[in-house]
Amino acid sequence: MQHARSGDVGEQAAELWRRYTTVRNRSTQLIDGLSAEDCQVQSMPDVSPAKWHLAHTTWFFETFVLAESGAPHHAFDPLFGQLFNSYYNSVGRMHPRAQRGLLSRPALETVLKYRRHVDQEMRAALPALFAAGLAPRIELGLQHEEQHQELMLTDIQHVLSCNPLLPAYRSEEPPVSVPVVPTWMHCEAGMRRIGHQGDGFAFDNETPPCRVWLNAFELASRPVTNGEYRSFIQDGGYRDPLLWLADGWTQRQADDGDRPLYWQADLDHAFGLHGLQPLDPDAPVCHLSYYEADAYARWVGMRLPTEAEWESMMIERGIAWNTGEGATCPRIGGAPAIGQVWEWTSSAYAPYPGFRAAPGAIGEYNGKFMCNQFVLRGGSCATPPGHARPSYRNFFPPAARWQFSGLRLARDA
Amino acid sequence: MQHARSGDVGEQAAELWRRYTTVRNRSTQLIDGLSAEDCQVQSMPDVSPAKWHLAHTTWFFETFVLAESGAPHHAFDPLFGQLFNSYYNSVGRMHPRAQRGLLSRPALETVLKYRRHVDQEMRAALPALFAAGLAPRIELGLQHEEQHQELMLTDIQHVLSCNPLLPAYRSEEPPVSVPVVPTWMHCEAGMRRIGHQGDGFAFDNETPPCRVWLNAFELASRPVTNGEYRSFIQDGGYRDPLLWLADGWTQRQADDGDRPLYWQADLDHAFGLHGLQPLDPDAPVCHLSYYEADAYARWVGMRLPTEAEWESMMIERGIAWNTGEGATCPRIGGAPAIGQVWEWTSSAYAPYPGFRAAPGAIGEYNGKFMCNQFVLRGGSCATPPGHARPSYRNFFPPAARWQFSGLRLARDA
Amino acid sequence: MQHARSGDVGEQAAELWRRYTTVRNRSTQLIDGLSAEDCQVQSMPDVSPAKWHLAHTTWFFETFVLAESGAPHHAFDPLFGQLFNSYYNSVGRMHPRAQRGLLSRPALETVLKYRRHVDQEMRAALPALFAAGLAPRIELGLQHEEQHQELMLTDIQHVLSCNPLLPAYRSEEPPVSVPVVPTWMHCEAGMRRIGHQGDGFAFDNETPPCRVWLNAFELASRPVTNGEYRSFIQDGGYRDPLLWLADGWTQRQADDGDRPLYWQADLDHAFGLHGLQPLDPDAPVCHLSYYEADAYARWVGMRLPTEAEWESMMIERGIAWNTGEGATCPRIGGAPAIGQVWEWTSSAYAPYPGFRAAPGAIGEYNGKFMCNQFVLRGGSCATPPGHARPSYRNFFPPAARWQFSGLRLARDA
Amino acid sequence: MQHARSGDVGEQAAELWRRYTTVRNRSTQLIDGLSAEDCQVQSMPDVSPAKWHLAHTTWFFETFVLAESGAPHHAFDPLFGQLFNSYYNSVGRMHPRAQRGLLSRPALETVLKYRRHVDQEMRAALPALFAAGLAPRIELGLQHEEQHQELMLTDIQHVLSCNPLLPAYRSEEPPVSVPVVPTWMHCEAGMRRIGHQGDGFAFDNETPPCRVWLNAFELASRPVTNGEYRSFIQDGGYRDPLLWLADGWTQRQADDGDRPLYWQADLDHAFGLHGLQPLDPDAPVCHLSYYEADAYARWVGMRLPTEAEWESMMIERGIAWNTGEGATCPRIGGAPAIGQVWEWTSSAYAPYPGFRAAPGAIGEYNGKFMCNQFVLRGGSCATPPGHARPSYRNFFPPAARWQFSGLRLARDA
Repeated sequence: MQHARSGDVGEQAAELWRRYTTVRNRSTQLIDGLSAEDCQVQSMPDVSPAKWHLAHTTWFFETFVLAESGAPHHAFDPLFGQLFNSYYNSVGRMHPRAQRGLLSRPALETVLKYRRHVDQEMRAALPALFAAGLAPRIELGLQHEEQHQELMLTDIQHVLSCNPLLPAYRSEEPPVSVPVVPTWMHCEAGMRRIGHQGDGFAFDNETPPCRVWLNAFELASRPVTNGEYRSFIQDGGYRDPLLWLADGWTQRQADDGDRPLYWQADLDHAFGLHGLQPLDPDAPVCHLSYYEADAYARWVGMRLPTEAEWESMMIERGIAWNTGEGATCPRIGGAPAIGQVWEWTSSAYAPYPGFRAAPGAIGEYNGKFMCNQFVLRGGSCATPPGHARPSYRNFFPPAARWQFSGLRLARDA
Repeated sequence: MQHARSGDVGEQAAELWRRYTTVRNRSTQLIDGLSAEDCQVQSMPDVSPAKWHLAHTTWFFETFVLAESGAPHHAFDPLFGQLFNSYYNSVGRMHPRAQRGLLSRPALETVLKYRRHVDQEMRAALPALFAAGLAPRIELGLQHEEQHQELMLTDIQHVLSCNPLLPAYRSEEPPVSVPVVPTWMHCEAGMRRIGHQGDGFAFDNETPPCRVWLNAFELASRPVTNGEYRSFIQDGGYRDPLLWLADGWTQRQADDGDRPLYWQADLDHAFGLHGLQPLDPDAPVCHLSYYEADAYARWVGMRLPTEAEWESMMIERGIAWNTGEGATCPRIGGAPAIGQVWEWTSSAYAPYPGFRAAPGAIGEYNGKFMCNQFVLRGGSCATPPGHARPSYRNFFPPAARWQFSGLRLARDA
Repeated sequence: MQHARSGDVGEQAAELWRRYTTVRNRSTQLIDGLSAEDCQVQSMPDVSPAKWHLAHTTWFFETFVLAESGAPHHAFDPLFGQLFNSYYNSVGRMHPRAQRGLLSRPALETVLKYRRHVDQEMRAALPALFAAGLAPRIELGLQHEEQHQELMLTDIQHVLSCNPLLPAYRSEEPPVSVPVVPTWMHCEAGMRRIGHQGDGFAFDNETPPCRVWLNAFELASRPVTNGEYRSFIQDGGYRDPLLWLADGWTQRQADDGDRPLYWQADLDHAFGLHGLQPLDPDAPVCHLSYYEADAYARWVGMRLPTEAEWESMMIERGIAWNTGEGATCPRIGGAPAIGQVWEWTSSAYAPYPGFRAAPGAIGEYNGKFMCNQFVLRGGSCATPPGHARPSYRNFFPPAARWQFSGLRLARDA
Repeated sequence: MQHARSGDVGEQAAELWRRYTTVRNRSTQLIDGLSAEDCQVQSMPDVSPAKWHLAHTTWFFETFVLAESGAPHHAFDPLFGQLFNSYYNSVGRMHPRAQRGLLSRPALETVLKYRRHVDQEMRAALPALFAAGLAPRIELGLQHEEQHQELMLTDIQHVLSCNPLLPAYRSEEPPVSVPVVPTWMHCEAGMRRIGHQGDGFAFDNETPPCRVWLNAFELASRPVTNGEYRSFIQDGGYRDPLLWLADGWTQRQADDGDRPLYWQADLDHAFGLHGLQPLDPDAPVCHLSYYEADAYARWVGMRLPTEAEWESMMIERGIAWNTGEGATCPRIGGAPAIGQVWEWTSSAYAPYPGFRAAPGAIGEYNGKFMCNQFVLRGGSCATPPGHARPSYRNFFPPAARWQFSGLRLARDA
């Protein structure tokens, strides 16, 4: 949560405000084409309604910036503090997560008013916030909102997938991937340093930077594709318990899943933000659980990388993010790029040595989730441009499948 | 499902169309003041979104009148057959009941168009429908829609109750009850005849009329009130297992319920369609489960009536229904009236001797639910005027609490 | 719970003691051939370990006879009051039903000692008990124990069925049924009187006798057989939702059951107390749920009888019970007999008009279960000889399948 | 799974046989004082009946030694392969884990015969097994059996704890701990090597040895005690969500746990293998979940150690195991010893770099569980003497509480 300090304050403030406006607008643009009803639905406990995302990200600024600034602040509605608190026990009661979809009030329109209200208060208070040293907290709020922008897309996709009408979020044709033959990228054994080290923004879970020893290893130059994954299915991969972690096999038997979430039974079509589409064999496979990613790697005799391997390789190679504003399905181009699907690593989500959660409520942001989750690295088509970086640590429970989650193969060198 | 036949066909058709228009309009009037989001939410599996009710009642006419008439018929959307089928296995697949709240599409606006589309087709086909003998089926569709009108109100109340903002469906003040001292109505032992016998409409479960022997008994002249029920609570009624049926006690321990649904912990306020309001001690207690009604009766040393006792008494006394268009909370006036709360009887919902379900899909309307439910008699403030009658059999599982369900005491004479 | 009074007291006491000894011995004989481990297992919450049955029936005498007599009484172990209380809230805490199988202590041997201890106390106190008017209570305890003798057999069968070794409780060959062509027994319409009316013992739920009007009807002369039921399965009966009550269809889909409990997939073998045996096509089908019995009746265009029809017919015809000491699987002989399988009736288990539960703890015996259950009439191969009678009301939830439950067809005449 | 090779084969075989006899006898000695019923009960899915442990460990030798040796082998009962397979998909079907307590057959006596049968076959085949290179596999079987010896004790304790009689497994008085003031043991930053490196036996999950960088840190000289943990409870530790991982807080709210498993509500007594006993304030706290251990550490401003820190410290300091044959409750003496309670580390259970599961069924031993579990280090009072070592990795899901699991504090230096 560090923030660069350069130039004079007025210029910094103007710059921050431009960024604030851009990020905030992007959120509301995401519901273009959706109805208030679309923004109301919660299709499973992990999913939040789009309306809730729009309100919660606003609540974040109200609670952690405006309310902490000491500046005069007029609450839009005192009950919103409870309705749109996600998981911060420090700041009071919260509406149960699984019941977010029951909140037909406030209306979407009211939530949009709430957004404008807080934006105006933010604008008016901006000099005072800067003076109070809250610029880094504003940046945290924007990064937080960018995270929710990705969640809005994954959640909308899940909501629409539950409707037998299979409606499309985007009506245009999805892009087509280019076939790419994967190569191996080699890394020598040695001490490395991972974690956030520069001046730019980073979440607390990327710090402090730490030393780690790596044996020699190799990473594939691109993620595994739909076509490759289909071969795994057709070879009986979902029927062979020896390929699966014990928990994964138990889950597979419980839900009788035999293919990635959103794939149709014919293995030739998949549902996505563009509606039901033919499966692109050259696009990266996604919406995999950790168990599926791990089983696939075992099937080909490889393994998933650790997060230290992943980060070290990306830094050494200087690999660029391949993202585009507004992409809504993962595709592969020609370069060994990252940024189309999140890549499961074999690293359990844990604090780096010396990690300390921030004092106060903000300390609940990341630290308390460091258990029963795995780290994903990279970024996806739904990640806002510029949001991710080599040290970025995304994390989800191993059974989660509704994110844009795929894998890249690794092997010992 | 019999229907009166009198006058000439043209007049009958005009009469039926007036009734059709009245009933259909009443449904859409029920969502006045609600947003599309309000009409989207399903707060528990038993509840359906208001939008779904509006579509399903329309589907009923499309499926069981238009499609069976042989008249040319243009389906508004072929997939609606699946989306809005409630439980008729005979006519094809159905969307899972617990997932009705996930259908953000079709939009409320589209459902309203669907209603107009079917209404126009009905109007155009009316002569042909009459000629094909489908007038009774149309009447069944209207009775069916009236049932859903009551469900819309109970479901909306439940949906709004799940919102910490506790929004009111009706902003005006609720009416106030008049205190009434109950008396006992006496009935001699003897053979009686219950069930539907006249010319008017009745559901198949009210037939055939049947003979039943009754011992002498007495019924209270009015339902139990909130004030009386509060005394039961304050006397420890929810903590004494000897007052409860075994299943009721198990459920009480599981959900730790210690008061009627919608009552606040202070026992002085309750949520309803008028929002959070002081508890009216003279109004009939409602939103009770069968278990609660039965425990209360045991506490006062009485019992619930059987449905045969209830029906016989109402016929002998010629007791009038006390209903008013648009009432949204139960109240008691001066007369020994019925029609403000449904009254749990001790009769399990079962077929009358000689009952036969209708052939075809319509046979699924009632018969297959004759198991694990209890009969309620009377009618409630939310029942459309003229809908109920002495032989009317409402039914719900004993644990259901979200209906306007109360009780009237009975005792052996 | 009435009890005959005749002869002088000493003779009566001697007679009662002979009966006491016979019944009590029969319970312990039921575990002949079983190990302490066999008597320990609880294979589902509805099942109790044989050891628990042996202790609970003893606890009944200790609690409801010895402790109430005022005679000096030495508790074998004060904690047994909690361990072996089944469901009597009036007499204190109870061990949770689903955890009876966790009680490795007391050992089976200790429970047998407990039985002897209470038997000795009973014998010593017999004159005092008689003087205190507790003879009817002793008889109730014996009837209660006979009920548990049947449960011991059904529970043991379920326990052994969960073991892949499929061990047999009885090693001898099971008897073979004689094919019997069913006829219809006719009954005219009219008023009848059902319920217990004589001097002998009856449970409170058989009283008071009551008048009931019956339309003319017919009952089959024998229960439905395995062979007949197999035709229903082979005709697709388990795949046609129109044959099933809604709750039954839901359950069928949930557990994916497609045949009676204990039948093997080949429809040619079934597990029972004699181990895995070829299905006897002429024996009565059993281990059916109410849903299965009801669906079968609908398939053949008939229905289940009401309990009033069943009782009236058996009285009019004077049909004899066909039971034999120690039978462990239902068979059909030549006469229109009853007593091999319990027969589901279409009557929900409810109090007879004027029913009052006994005061005190004994009032919990039957009354609080009059909800969500159906009445079965007749008796089974596992019912102790002489235990059942025409007015006897057995009852189970409609989903229960582990009892010896079958059906007899009825139709309107 | 490496095994030392020294001396000539005959001597080695004799030595191995002595060890085989010792270990195998120890298992059967553990049920001294238990009845067949005690050995039958499965009190929760994680627990196995003692009888099952005795059979499964025997099955292991039958399946992975005798059957793989090529020597003539007579199966005691062919169905045992299914009944006593724990989780090896490679070797065929298995009885469901949660239903082990339903197997009243084979009787305990039969299982003991099965043990003798396999022991005799092992003895007869010993030379052939040696010749076939199966000595390391025999050692694996013995180590496996030692693991189950500890599980037998933890499982028996859980079984007995479910009985309101609270029976004691051991009737003698438990030992009393000596108060020890903890000190900090310091370790400098630097590269370390962890994992199994010598000649002796180790499980595959301890290999290959690997390099790891450690920052300077300190470990407490003894585990946290009951008295210290009681202060945490009394300070409101179970009511402050900020002390808990999110998953831990969710679980705490779900089961409403407010103290360690087996502690009584008075915080002054706890149930154990010696029955209900006063809580020893100086003994190490145990039966903690990972969540409880982690919350305690956060409360005192410290943290749990990583497994690399733990192992490095124990090697550097040469700390001895403090175990004694037959101990059944954890106690603390004077030395900075380990071996009384397993110590939760903050390390998720994961493969060491370069880890490969063994080929064949034995590969299912450890690898497939490397997910959703945490590593515990040390050993407990229930661990067989000599079984554990500095590189030993025990592992359980973070919610598990029925093991002898406690914690040792760590902090950055």
